[in-house]
Amino acid sequence: MAGSSFGTILKVTTWGESHGPAVGCVLDGFPAGMKLSEEDIQPVMDRRRPGQSAAATARNESDTVEILSGVFDGVTTGTPISLLVRNSDQHSEDYRELKDCYRPGHADYTYERKYGIRDYRGGGRSSGRETTARVAAGAIAEKFLNELGVDLCFYTAAIGDVVIDRGHFDRDLIWKTATRMPDRSADAAAMELIEQAKAAKDSLGGMVEGRISGVPAGVGDPVFHKLDAMLAGALMSIGAVKSVGVGDGMFAAVRTGSQNNDAFYSDEDGIIRKRTNHAGGILGGISDGSDIVLSSYFKPTPSIAQPQETVHGNGVPKALSIHGRHDPVIVPRAVVVCEAMSALSLLDAMLLNLSARAENVRKFYAC
Amino acid sequence: MAGSSFGTILKVTTWGESHGPAVGCVLDGFPAGMKLSEEDIQPVMDRRRPGQSAAATARNESDTVEILSGVFDGVTTGTPISLLVRNSDQHSEDYRELKDCYRPGHADYTYERKYGIRDYRGGGRSSGRETTARVAAGAIAEKFLNELGVDLCFYTAAIGDVVIDRGHFDRDLIWKTATRMPDRSADAAAMELIEQAKAAKDSLGGMVEGRISGVPAGVGDPVFHKLDAMLAGALMSIGAVKSVGVGDGMFAAVRTGSQNNDAFYSDEDGIIRKRTNHAGGILGGISDGSDIVLSSYFKPTPSIAQPQETVHGNGVPKALSIHGRHDPVIVPRAVVVCEAMSALSLLDAMLLNLSARAENVRKFYAC
Amino acid sequence: MAGSSFGTILKVTTWGESHGPAVGCVLDGFPAGMKLSEEDIQPVMDRRRPGQSAAATARNESDTVEILSGVFDGVTTGTPISLLVRNSDQHSEDYRELKDCYRPGHADYTYERKYGIRDYRGGGRSSGRETTARVAAGAIAEKFLNELGVDLCFYTAAIGDVVIDRGHFDRDLIWKTATRMPDRSADAAAMELIEQAKAAKDSLGGMVEGRISGVPAGVGDPVFHKLDAMLAGALMSIGAVKSVGVGDGMFAAVRTGSQNNDAFYSDEDGIIRKRTNHAGGILGGISDGSDIVLSSYFKPTPSIAQPQETVHGNGVPKALSIHGRHDPVIVPRAVVVCEAMSALSLLDAMLLNLSARAENVRKFYAC
Amino acid sequence: MAGSSFGTILKVTTWGESHGPAVGCVLDGFPAGMKLSEEDIQPVMDRRRPGQSAAATARNESDTVEILSGVFDGVTTGTPISLLVRNSDQHSEDYRELKDCYRPGHADYTYERKYGIRDYRGGGRSSGRETTARVAAGAIAEKFLNELGVDLCFYTAAIGDVVIDRGHFDRDLIWKTATRMPDRSADAAAMELIEQAKAAKDSLGGMVEGRISGVPAGVGDPVFHKLDAMLAGALMSIGAVKSVGVGDGMFAAVRTGSQNNDAFYSDEDGIIRKRTNHAGGILGGISDGSDIVLSSYFKPTPSIAQPQETVHGNGVPKALSIHGRHDPVIVPRAVVVCEAMSALSLLDAMLLNLSARAENVRKFYAC
Repeated sequence: MAGSSFGTILKVTTWGESHGPAVGCVLDGFPAGMKLSEEDIQPVMDRRRPGQSAAATARNESDTVEILSGVFDGVTTGTPISLLVRNSDQHSEDYRELKDCYRPGHADYTYERKYGIRDYRGGGRSSGRETTARVAAGAIAEKFLNELGVDLCFYTAAIGDVVIDRGHFDRDLIWKTATRMPDRSADAAAMELIEQAKAAKDSLGGMVEGRISGVPAGVGDPVFHKLDAMLAGALMSIGAVKSVGVGDGMFAAVRTGSQNNDAFYSDEDGIIRKRTNHAGGILGGISDGSDIVLSSYFKPTPSIAQPQETVHGNGVPKALSIHGRHDPVIVPRAVVVCEAMSALSLLDAMLLNLSARAENVRKFYAC
Repeated sequence: MAGSSFGTILKVTTWGESHGPAVGCVLDGFPAGMKLSEEDIQPVMDRRRPGQSAAATARNESDTVEILSGVFDGVTTGTPISLLVRNSDQHSEDYRELKDCYRPGHADYTYERKYGIRDYRGGGRSSGRETTARVAAGAIAEKFLNELGVDLCFYTAAIGDVVIDRGHFDRDLIWKTATRMPDRSADAAAMELIEQAKAAKDSLGGMVEGRISGVPAGVGDPVFHKLDAMLAGALMSIGAVKSVGVGDGMFAAVRTGSQNNDAFYSDEDGIIRKRTNHAGGILGGISDGSDIVLSSYFKPTPSIAQPQETVHGNGVPKALSIHGRHDPVIVPRAVVVCEAMSALSLLDAMLLNLSARAENVRKFYAC
Repeated sequence: MAGSSFGTILKVTTWGESHGPAVGCVLDGFPAGMKLSEEDIQPVMDRRRPGQSAAATARNESDTVEILSGVFDGVTTGTPISLLVRNSDQHSEDYRELKDCYRPGHADYTYERKYGIRDYRGGGRSSGRETTARVAAGAIAEKFLNELGVDLCFYTAAIGDVVIDRGHFDRDLIWKTATRMPDRSADAAAMELIEQAKAAKDSLGGMVEGRISGVPAGVGDPVFHKLDAMLAGALMSIGAVKSVGVGDGMFAAVRTGSQNNDAFYSDEDGIIRKRTNHAGGILGGISDGSDIVLSSYFKPTPSIAQPQETVHGNGVPKALSIHGRHDPVIVPRAVVVCEAMSALSLLDAMLLNLSARAENVRKFYAC
Repeated sequence: MAGSSFGTILKVTTWGESHGPAVGCVLDGFPAGMKLSEEDIQPVMDRRRPGQSAAATARNESDTVEILSGVFDGVTTGTPISLLVRNSDQHSEDYRELKDCYRPGHADYTYERKYGIRDYRGGGRSSGRETTARVAAGAIAEKFLNELGVDLCFYTAAIGDVVIDRGHFDRDLIWKTATRMPDRSADAAAMELIEQAKAAKDSLGGMVEGRISGVPAGVGDPVFHKLDAMLAGALMSIGAVKSVGVGDGMFAAVRTGSQNNDAFYSDEDGIIRKRTNHAGGILGGISDGSDIVLSSYFKPTPSIAQPQETVHGNGVPKALSIHGRHDPVIVPRAVVVCEAMSALSLLDAMLLNLSARAENVRKFYAC
């Protein structure tokens, strides 16, 4: 099935393997008339780029993005935006040993069972490298969301058992710390934990949190396309995410209705607001005007240097130690991926929302 | 947007409001040649039906399902299966008071902001009554999954802070206990908690767990249509679900790679298996042959009888006490809904999987 | 596959067999806030209803439509509109003889080869009765199109070799003549031809033409979702349609560029117009502001009373004479079906068009 | 809207403008395990390539296709196949004059009205150059169809009023004649007509016919996704196509049922066949095992060198003579595009068909 496409009005299609010549995507349905150049995308790409710190793989990719279509005279034209990123620093020989065996926690076994063939070099299509294309598309969506008054703030909230102190939240730190934590001391503690994990030839997981402000009430479509359902599917489609929550997430399950309900009130300007935001900005699948709050829980990187039990394709046992270059924890590099997927989902929902009311359609065509 | 449709090959479209004349769905793309009658669906409907215990609302609906199309001589024909359930026990007058105000934790405010109009009777389209149709469609999908050797087992794992003891798991109890807990003593404790909540004019949340066995390795489509992404979106589309997890879910985030990876081995029959199943049966978005394990966390029912702060549509404050008939905890009745959504998602993925390999397509057309 | 759904933002899903208990549809994605009741739909249903003249089958169906959801206080709510039409005058026994054999020109053979089972009563799902549901949905779409300033005028342009004289076009006649021809003398000639065909136990084909006015320039999406591609697919999906044309259709193929191009000019109000309309109102898949002109060519009704050569499912030859009640020509009853499919396609394209320009999206969310 | 994607299981997404750096596509959902290299695609590209004869534009493009993903060790892997074709011979300066005015018969005006901006160089996205990508994707689909026993034969059947003589049909001539006519004398006559049109600074239209053999009975999905509806939409999505027919097309409209019905019989091997094939291989939207016959009628190339009346964007009149390099008739180069679109539609339908019967799904999962 065509599983590499995502969205209804705004549709992104990604392609490419970790050790193929390039990765990329096509972003179709993007509105015409927004200024856009590679300079808008590249800084966001750089946030995901490997080789930047001790918290990430040493693979060195410039991740230079090229716009091949959909932009004319520096402005989007409404036609598909094709984005290309050449791969450059593949060390495919690192993977020869893995050709015939299945790495635990990876998709080697399942791809082979599904397709009968797999590109074993760097995980092929199942590699995190695929998210390069998502980030490029997401950067375009986020630029437009910003123009619409929407702000996305995603960051690492936890690595292993090191959790940020929300009382010391400093947004400026997000893209300065290697962990993408908005809290200097949590960053330091997490970096220490990462060094320990590396020393132990082991890896870590963690949690990415996101807060989206400025979404007006009324965005999202009921029933199966609820805004939270779309976001949950989008976030869970990121490799290594094992759980997704909205608002208070699983913690809502252990509270009572009187504790969990967010009371409505009318502020001094007569605008209806909520006293609290346990719901995370979505009620009945539709945005309520409060911040949308999302959490994505990541498993530890499955590639570890210590020996693991596995088998060859023919069933013969193998003691596997994975060398090559790997992230000791994927969470810091995944922050921008969560942000990209949320931006793409949300913008699609905001475009779909334009036709929710007959009066707005009438107004549009009366112009 | 057409948010009430779900699926690619197997597509379900639901319709209907809580206090309208009926609710129903159309299940399209279902394969021809499976025996089907109302008798296959009705017992599953009865598991969701209200009015059955102290754990549920007193609204009394027979939820009798009628097959209007797609079945001929007791067999599915491959054409759309239309299912109809008449509403009978609406007490719409209970909702007159709610016409002009927004119930906290409900979708009243967001529907009104989106559409400019809402059916305030019983929550209209945002009511849990919409899930009646999902359950009917899911029962059909599950019947076929059973024929394919797949078994779905969903149950209540927690209500409030009462969690089942997995060491005392008794599957036979699921549809016998009012809580849908597979553990007699947890059920008793949860019922006591529910009575306390009712006495306090309050409500509870909880967790539904599911275990799907017999899914062969290779089901699911990479990238955006990963099997776990589809399941997560499907479960999050159920009203009141605030978090979804696969396998160990969020607990994977606090472990190391060496703890979390599932080692592969070859069993005595030469079949490749995993020593553990932290992954919950899905690797890289594709089933790995182990049990698929899902968890859905529900917020407490937002309708509570104790006074709450809210506003009228015009912003005038109101102290609201919700009367009418409500579930003190929605979790027991939601078990079968989670099972239905999982069955629909999974069967769709299994049908899509038929064309994954060229050799299978060649074989099909060589017959 | 889920072939019974159609549309992107505005999605219609039909269901039902000719001799099942009912037919119906779900219209999802329809904007909230349009006045709607059964009285808006029923008159359009009556235009398709059988049993009204010598030009149509004697099957007598009241085709009473019931709205089951999506409308509250006489206004659409943005939620799925479920429409139900009970079947009443099935003469299933007429079809016993056909159970085991394949009617030439019908879908009996192909359904059986595809599904291994078929509802042989009245053609089951492949019956023209399925279009009842399309017409009901189309009536709703057309009501809204009218509010947007769009007018649809469809009529019979030819039956057999009797073609209307466009110089004598009288729109008022369309729903008064049995043939749906807007030309009194063509109607008389066609009725005579029909009587001859009936006497000869034979049947006729013909052509439905449509003219859609008031569509602003800019509607339709390039490449695969061109407005003409969507309309062509929609019209070709009507049983018995064998050819579809836009504007001058196939006649454009035998002209030169200088003859076929429509010159642009600026009228006295400074509005850009075309001197001619060979293109039929669509250039590059996008409406150009001129009338959209469509033609649909129908084959003769395959059910005829004269003996035909066919086989039983087991291959044994059979001389078949089809009795039962059939339209000697399907064209008059198909006029409203072509109009419905065009309305649904066009409204979907008009809703999609709202997000074509970034400036409009910005304006919407700045309100 | 995302109008540049096409298909359900097999999904092609094209991108690129005539004078941008490249055009290309992503083909997702293609089964794993088919041998594929650029050498399979390039010969088909060459059939569409410009600059090859007096019947085509002088623009000289090598149209070299590069596979960027989805193929490993010479075999498809089931992941998206990304195809890239660099543009090389743009003469963008030819279009400076056209920047501010609308070419009659082109999409300049409609794109500007829709998007507020357009890439005026060579028609931008609306250029026939977009079909380069369709042809590349179609070549892959057709290779697999051939492996499934399906043969596609498309050719020019008419240019202007020169029609091939089907009695002299010589398939070997198709890719040898400049007109793509399978009839030497019709080719000669058409070339003469083309020379006359060029001399008169004018252009011609024509008709492409296709015959698809070897499709088993049972392919296609009823109602809106009928095989003929999908094919008609696909063909009508090719720029310049104004009419599409299946089987006898519009000629069916002037015959009687007894003339038009195809009688069934059982051949010496007990296989059920039809005596005639007026239906063109499709009944009720499902293939009947006979050849599928398609006709696509093309308007004359709108770019002509003789003066035409038009306006600037500001409404000021302009006498326009289009210079630059244009096809005097687009039909010969469109043959392979019709074949590509038909191959993509048909293969998608054949993949969808795998799940039509429950017994086949059971068999698949019992393996």
